Amino acid sequence: MVVKAGIFGATGYTGVELIKLLQRHKGARLVFAASESSAGQRLCDVIPCAFETALVKPDDAPLQEADVVFSCLPHGVSGQMCARVLGAGKRAVDFSADFRLRDPAAYARWYKQEHPCPELLQEAVYGLPEIYRGVLPDANLVANPGCYPTSVILGALPVLELGALADPVVIADSKSGVSGAGRKLTQSTHFVEVNENLAPYNVGHAHRHVPEIEQLLNDAWVGREKRLEIGDSESPISNLESPISVLFSPHLLPISRGMLSALYFRLTPEAAGQDWHAIFARRYDGEPFVRVLPQGQIATIAHVAHNNLCVLSVHQQSGSLGDRLMVVVCIDNLVKGASGQALQSMNLMFGLDEAEGLG
Amino acid sequence: MVVKAGIFGATGYTGVELIKLLQRHKGARLVFAASESSAGQRLCDVIPCAFETALVKPDDAPLQEADVVFSCLPHGVSGQMCARVLGAGKRAVDFSADFRLRDPAAYARWYKQEHPCPELLQEAVYGLPEIYRGVLPDANLVANPGCYPTSVILGALPVLELGALADPVVIADSKSGVSGAGRKLTQSTHFVEVNENLAPYNVGHAHRHVPEIEQLLNDAWVGREKRLEIGDSESPISNLESPISVLFSPHLLPISRGMLSALYFRLTPEAAGQDWHAIFARRYDGEPFVRVLPQGQIATIAHVAHNNLCVLSVHQQSGSLGDRLMVVVCIDNLVKGASGQALQSMNLMFGLDEAEGLG
Amino acid sequence: MVVKAGIFGATGYTGVELIKLLQRHKGARLVFAASESSAGQRLCDVIPCAFETALVKPDDAPLQEADVVFSCLPHGVSGQMCARVLGAGKRAVDFSADFRLRDPAAYARWYKQEHPCPELLQEAVYGLPEIYRGVLPDANLVANPGCYPTSVILGALPVLELGALADPVVIADSKSGVSGAGRKLTQSTHFVEVNENLAPYNVGHAHRHVPEIEQLLNDAWVGREKRLEIGDSESPISNLESPISVLFSPHLLPISRGMLSALYFRLTPEAAGQDWHAIFARRYDGEPFVRVLPQGQIATIAHVAHNNLCVLSVHQQSGSLGDRLMVVVCIDNLVKGASGQALQSMNLMFGLDEAEGLG
Amino acid sequence: MVVKAGIFGATGYTGVELIKLLQRHKGARLVFAASESSAGQRLCDVIPCAFETALVKPDDAPLQEADVVFSCLPHGVSGQMCARVLGAGKRAVDFSADFRLRDPAAYARWYKQEHPCPELLQEAVYGLPEIYRGVLPDANLVANPGCYPTSVILGALPVLELGALADPVVIADSKSGVSGAGRKLTQSTHFVEVNENLAPYNVGHAHRHVPEIEQLLNDAWVGREKRLEIGDSESPISNLESPISVLFSPHLLPISRGMLSALYFRLTPEAAGQDWHAIFARRYDGEPFVRVLPQGQIATIAHVAHNNLCVLSVHQQSGSLGDRLMVVVCIDNLVKGASGQALQSMNLMFGLDEAEGLG
Repeated sequence: MVVKAGIFGATGYTGVELIKLLQRHKGARLVFAASESSAGQRLCDVIPCAFETALVKPDDAPLQEADVVFSCLPHGVSGQMCARVLGAGKRAVDFSADFRLRDPAAYARWYKQEHPCPELLQEAVYGLPEIYRGVLPDANLVANPGCYPTSVILGALPVLELGALADPVVIADSKSGVSGAGRKLTQSTHFVEVNENLAPYNVGHAHRHVPEIEQLLNDAWVGREKRLEIGDSESPISNLESPISVLFSPHLLPISRGMLSALYFRLTPEAAGQDWHAIFARRYDGEPFVRVLPQGQIATIAHVAHNNLCVLSVHQQSGSLGDRLMVVVCIDNLVKGASGQALQSMNLMFGLDEAEGLG
Repeated sequence: MVVKAGIFGATGYTGVELIKLLQRHKGARLVFAASESSAGQRLCDVIPCAFETALVKPDDAPLQEADVVFSCLPHGVSGQMCARVLGAGKRAVDFSADFRLRDPAAYARWYKQEHPCPELLQEAVYGLPEIYRGVLPDANLVANPGCYPTSVILGALPVLELGALADPVVIADSKSGVSGAGRKLTQSTHFVEVNENLAPYNVGHAHRHVPEIEQLLNDAWVGREKRLEIGDSESPISNLESPISVLFSPHLLPISRGMLSALYFRLTPEAAGQDWHAIFARRYDGEPFVRVLPQGQIATIAHVAHNNLCVLSVHQQSGSLGDRLMVVVCIDNLVKGASGQALQSMNLMFGLDEAEGLG
Repeated sequence: MVVKAGIFGATGYTGVELIKLLQRHKGARLVFAASESSAGQRLCDVIPCAFETALVKPDDAPLQEADVVFSCLPHGVSGQMCARVLGAGKRAVDFSADFRLRDPAAYARWYKQEHPCPELLQEAVYGLPEIYRGVLPDANLVANPGCYPTSVILGALPVLELGALADPVVIADSKSGVSGAGRKLTQSTHFVEVNENLAPYNVGHAHRHVPEIEQLLNDAWVGREKRLEIGDSESPISNLESPISVLFSPHLLPISRGMLSALYFRLTPEAAGQDWHAIFARRYDGEPFVRVLPQGQIATIAHVAHNNLCVLSVHQQSGSLGDRLMVVVCIDNLVKGASGQALQSMNLMFGLDEAEGLG
Repeated sequence: MVVKAGIFGATGYTGVELIKLLQRHKGARLVFAASESSAGQRLCDVIPCAFETALVKPDDAPLQEADVVFSCLPHGVSGQMCARVLGAGKRAVDFSADFRLRDPAAYARWYKQEHPCPELLQEAVYGLPEIYRGVLPDANLVANPGCYPTSVILGALPVLELGALADPVVIADSKSGVSGAGRKLTQSTHFVEVNENLAPYNVGHAHRHVPEIEQLLNDAWVGREKRLEIGDSESPISNLESPISVLFSPHLLPISRGMLSALYFRLTPEAAGQDWHAIFARRYDGEPFVRVLPQGQIATIAHVAHNNLCVLSVHQQSGSLGDRLMVVVCIDNLVKGASGQALQSMNLMFGLDEAEGLG
């Protein structure tokens, strides 16, 4: 079986990356690549790359030939396009934020507009295979996770699932390459403004990925079934009542692609006595795209450049810092943080080898 | 009056930067630049730059002609050189770590060697004018602060001096340009390993700047006289008994120079009710080289490139993060983090305008 | 005497650089900095930098307080502003192309618009001190040279002045940092498009600096008085009749500032027998800002970063390439290629030390 | 059929790239990866990457299990290893310079050592499929071309094969990313020395790739059979008697990978009248990995990043430059300039689809 795939929004950075990955995929084939602004041209004439793919108008896209459609459009527009795809009886993977938040009111608050199709929110599956592998095969609508959320959630999951926090605030100091901001022109992505610089932005509780991160962290926090792994299973692991918040500081790095999140946790005394490297290794054992580095190594962006890995290192402290845990998480924002993860979901949706095309 | 200055270790990055700054200084003159390995050559023939300065052997350096000597040598060697300078009746500014820690046992523990001249520790002044401006005029031996400590201390000082912490752990997520690691060759500073990468190293409590940072933070913490500025002066500001620790995560950035530290504090309830932007602005009011950005702006490395400023932005949180304070601090590691700060100290030592040569 | 200077177009890269240099200049003082779009703000609130300079509306600029005005505006607009400055009895240094070409028809052809004030062309002096030092003291209107022309002309001058070419085509393969393209937003200066890339543009005979370069090269070529230095003074040095053309290939480098031109010449047999390193050294002997590197060294952009030098290396070939000469020329496009050179001209216009403020 | 491949020198940049490409190749399988210095470790523990490949000692490499062996060792050593591989009855692809020059005396002159196995020179095939596609299927020993030569030769070939030069000197102004210099530590590859810099090196006729380039250019020049394509076939295309020389100026770019060569030719009058874009398009018609850009576009390094393409643009001049032709050629030095080209040769050696694994 060969999965036939279409793309809307093909000339952005995630679109081009997706086309590159599809070319190498043995079980999938691109049936159309659509672009409103560049229809009629070849992809390689629009953006310097190896692909001579012809671009079609979205209205001319042969939707009926596709089994699945990837929408790399901006939020709002993308949700509407996905509704059209589902209406045509096809499956959709949405790269925008439109189907990530369960609550349309939260969407309206953070994205300053009404949700384009709230009736579809219930059937959307959050496309993070490390959590939702079981339901992805049946999903018709996948919300591909944000890049920052992917890194923060995968780095925090083992801590949250075990209820190990003594402090409900998780600090995520994240640094991203510029492709995460897209190709549109802004002063902040001008070469001279980025180069030889490091620029934090939207720090604190202001970035639109905050509600997405907090939704997933609290899902893990309220799920109690996994908490018994640690120490004395009778004693409550944490008596925190408040929901988990993230203090999130994104920074723009002078690199094209890649992302690193440094996470800081304060553990309960019981949790502080555990071996967190072992806990992380166990949690991600068998995961095809999460790698916990051996102790003594530290995750860097170089580990994940141009591949679909999420590479983690676990740094448990001692002495005066004995209740602190630091985790470093790296992904390539265009692969595991976008197009690679979308293909990983597609592989699961269609019963293919989860790792196909991502080696 | 013209201050006559000499330099040992002139061909490292800090040495070259110091020569550049001295060229522009109206009240100082370079009388020698020494280099063991490159003696007999011109500086511009050793490292691409504008300066035709002749390099002499350290043993041939005309120490008697100098009023002050800057030692840009590695630790251990540098302390011995400073002893020789003081022995010749001259004043010294040491760029190494040799005179930064008051405790020679801590030095031995962190630097894996006995202190070269513990008898001089008592007379060394830590060359951070924002704290020690009053005693620098009489100093004969100045310990020029480390670059990471300069950024972390200046960003934490107003919080520590007011005893505002509810949690004794200060988190410092710091990112530095590569010149901070010096010119010596290591795999980790090879262009291809650094470029398009971000690499944390020595994270947690492992970097040699940790004891220097903690020494200064605890000095500020134990000094109680400034605590009364906040709110109800009768109530204890913080009842923390433990000393302050730093959870310090340095990262290597793919840039040549510049440094950014993101600091995270948990405040006492009383402190959380204060206006921290105003407190920082007041603390640094009149400081020639510390600038607190207007609210709404965020400090970036571009603010400080090639100048002696320490630029800060203060990000007080609210809502579920109401007791958290984040501060972003930027310096150029070769200027305020090294050669500029050393000149600032020299200006104070010799009664010159503190800002001379640093505009 | 203190020269009072004003700036129009202060928030571009050359404007900010000029303000930085003026701050360090002992004999000049900034009396206004004007910006149409950012009037009412401080410079440091518009572009991350150290300068709190207040920006005024161009119409409110106190022209009468200035001795000299620098116009960093776009061509067309800049010429008109210079006319206004001259009309007010003040002297002007124009950073645009408006007064560089002697021929208004050539201007109209290359810049696709009529010249804004052709009547001023005659009194404009081309502000390259290495050629026009003698007349700059009397100039009221200075055309500050383009960055590419500065590098190509200084690298070709000794060859042209001696009439040494056997081939009338000079090849200039030039590479520039991105600040040369200004702060305006275009896809070609987006960080991700520039980073990890090298992009030639306008290659051949298409860039607007071509007529400026050719005008100066032909001025040198037709001036015969210097040709007698080489070999047999009776024999014609070159019997080429055609004018000199440049085959000019600019490339965009993934760096913020700096420029390198590699020049290729084919020499007459007589000229090929000369010592070209010596000829270059003699030509630029005593020049404060042109440095001919010792044989065996090669000019790099690092030699000129943030300084006003033009650094050259001369690579005379032998054997099968015996009649070829290659010259590598480097400048910082924002200093010797723009703001530094403008200050060098200002120093000469007002009888100051030519190097003041440029060390 | 699955080709079984082994690698010596697996931890260099070309070795890691080769392993990445082999992972994606449907018709080949890695049977060993050897490294003298890192044997016993996993590749991902030696260099940050996605591959957990176990490294073996060269002496323990199971040579008998391989069909083909890639040697990524330094010259001299690599030749000896290839001799061992051939002696074991296996086929070898050598990444070093050992089998590129036909003349062992030239090798000794340029590489400052005697050739390790001159008796094998005759059977080596230069692995540039665009010239030697016909003989690669029978080759047992392939000399994988250098990166600079690949770019210069492919850009010059159509001009040389047609005998179109009026000047026997081809100018190649080449710029390369730093991975071309390998992982060994030198001051010139230190991040701070490369970043924000452009550094020419070995300019003129000094780089070791000069004899390799000239050997291939002269092979094309002396082959006359293709010359009749242009214009009047009776008139001699060029009456140049002298061999072709290259004036070669390599520059180190501040990027990790990628290479651009700007080539400058002076054409005979007859040749100048031809349509060179059409000639290039015809020459490379059907080539799977050479792409001639449409007129009006210019080749950039971004076109070839991480792919096996050689992208060319042809810039024929007119007017005063009417006899000049400029060509811009780009390759990724680690793919078409090294590991990708080696796989392309392997595909041809074993009768596989030439493009397999390189999409």
